[in-house]
Amino acid sequence: MTLHERCVVMDGLIVSRWDRSIFEDMSRGGLTAANCTVSIWEDFLGTVDNIIEMKKLVAASSELVTLARSVDDIRAAKRSGKTAIILGFQNSHAFEDRVEYVGIFKELGVGISQLAYNTQNLIGTGCYERDGGLSGFGHEIVEEMNRVGILVDLSHVGPNTSREAILASKKPVCYSHCLPSGLKEHPRNKSDEELRFIADRGGFVGVTMFSPFLKNGPNSTIEDYVEAIRYVINVVGEDSVGIGTDFTQGYDKGFYDWISHDKGAYRKLTDFGTVLNPLGLRTIGEFPNLTRAMQSADIPERVIEKVLGENWLRLLGEVWSV
Amino acid sequence: MTLHERCVVMDGLIVSRWDRSIFEDMSRGGLTAANCTVSIWEDFLGTVDNIIEMKKLVAASSELVTLARSVDDIRAAKRSGKTAIILGFQNSHAFEDRVEYVGIFKELGVGISQLAYNTQNLIGTGCYERDGGLSGFGHEIVEEMNRVGILVDLSHVGPNTSREAILASKKPVCYSHCLPSGLKEHPRNKSDEELRFIADRGGFVGVTMFSPFLKNGPNSTIEDYVEAIRYVINVVGEDSVGIGTDFTQGYDKGFYDWISHDKGAYRKLTDFGTVLNPLGLRTIGEFPNLTRAMQSADIPERVIEKVLGENWLRLLGEVWSV
Repeated sequence: MTLHERCVVMDGLIVSRWDRSIFEDMSRGGLTAANCTVSIWEDFLGTVDNIIEMKKLVAASSELVTLARSVDDIRAAKRSGKTAIILGFQNSHAFEDRVEYVGIFKELGVGISQLAYNTQNLIGTGCYERDGGLSGFGHEIVEEMNRVGILVDLSHVGPNTSREAILASKKPVCYSHCLPSGLKEHPRNKSDEELRFIADRGGFVGVTMFSPFLKNGPNSTIEDYVEAIRYVINVVGEDSVGIGTDFTQGYDKGFYDWISHDKGAYRKLTDFGTVLNPLGLRTIGEFPNLTRAMQSADIPERVIEKVLGENWLRLLGEVWSV
Repeated sequence: MTLHERCVVMDGLIVSRWDRSIFEDMSRGGLTAANCTVSIWEDFLGTVDNIIEMKKLVAASSELVTLARSVDDIRAAKRSGKTAIILGFQNSHAFEDRVEYVGIFKELGVGISQLAYNTQNLIGTGCYERDGGLSGFGHEIVEEMNRVGILVDLSHVGPNTSREAILASKKPVCYSHCLPSGLKEHPRNKSDEELRFIADRGGFVGVTMFSPFLKNGPNSTIEDYVEAIRYVINVVGEDSVGIGTDFTQGYDKGFYDWISHDKGAYRKLTDFGTVLNPLGLRTIGEFPNLTRAMQSADIPERVIEKVLGENWLRLLGEVWSV
């Protein structure tokens, strides 16, 4: 067995046009688990619809995938050679104006939710506009997420809301998919200070490979991604880092238009330019290349094992055990 | 005919448990028009329900009241001795995440909407928490309100969102019901600078008599209210001032609990203490006392006429004519 095959491999962020072909590619890539986005701009009902669709898809491919609500579920998926699907939100808009909806979604299987997506919501503000910080309602939502066991994700959240959420949360929080601004300045990338601030408070950093945020843009290779992973390890230490690719497999231009306009429909927030995943990791199925690239970069196996999945599982275990 | 009977009398803010008895009291009080709240914490559908109920009530009391969508409607109401009901929101939460809902509500007859109520929403932030200013989506909403002709109200809005909305709006905006902090410091009251800032940009100030914000609290009399009106006239000039009582007639403690908790259900935002309308203006039916009290205070008839209604109608005409 290769190192990749032996390891728990967790992808902290995949947003795809969900269908069986994605699950097949997850299997090809040897993924043990993935945080799968089922809400971005959708409201409560739209998100429930997405969850229904995802559960149908998972049920129809039960030899490939299984829904995970606990670390035990993820370990069991590894033993049975399946990929554990974690339902996750990239926006907490679906909680609408109801603290009680947090617990409703937990019951439906949601394990991770980003507080805001790019712009202001009732909770706080995203990274593409001025950020007034975590609102009073946001404090109530974080408290409820802690209570029911949903991981707070801050990847697309602005710096002020992020800092205040890190301080407010009684459980560790994460950037599930981000890159260091030390390698490229971008509103979505995090400074060394921000990375240390979350890690020093028990938090976690998943590293993305979304090429518009990598220094070599669409010309990036898997080596650029490994460089970014190593950079983050150097800043926050080997126990606080994981993978969060931000694969958007199956989506076309319409999707990028939708995510880059406020609420999917209004002013344009950012222009990604060409989106092309790093050479060597164009598809989820190529995931084993990442392990090989980390080995080639002389990252010790012990560290690779943590970064590939064990760190994520420790974090999820802490947050989900309530 | 008394001065009160001759004048157009417009109340810029009434929030009541709407029923025929309120309309009867409006008639007793000689009200020509009133901005009647049909949304506070409600979402789109909840607000549509409220509008349906209000329209049923108005239809059932058509000898007393009539819905107004234009200044002509209000003038016609005056001629026929009815009270013109203007549908208004105290929160723009009902627009949800859809700029297009602004136009939908305009078509349903809504003429005035406050951008935020006490706390943060998608547009901006209310006066009872830290205020990060008008969001990008908020700019889009203000532009759409200008376009379709809905008056922007900032009474319960925070200072930063208010300032930025005043600057962003291409039509005059208003504080429909506020008091000067020059007479009493309170998060809901506005400083002389804030009052001048809105008036200098063509905006408007409706003066409320909600006793928790008056310096004498529950011991206030109609003379205290007239003092506040005169104070605001002195700050912004006689052409920019109107009445916005904030009558809550028909409501009990449950209503105050609902409005003073975020989203009607969560953390407590403020404690009003005893709510008792000023002696002499306890009920809508006592409205003629206000005109008499202004006369007794030697406010010239010309000014009383403007403050009682003509200023409001000029403002509404400017905003509603698109």
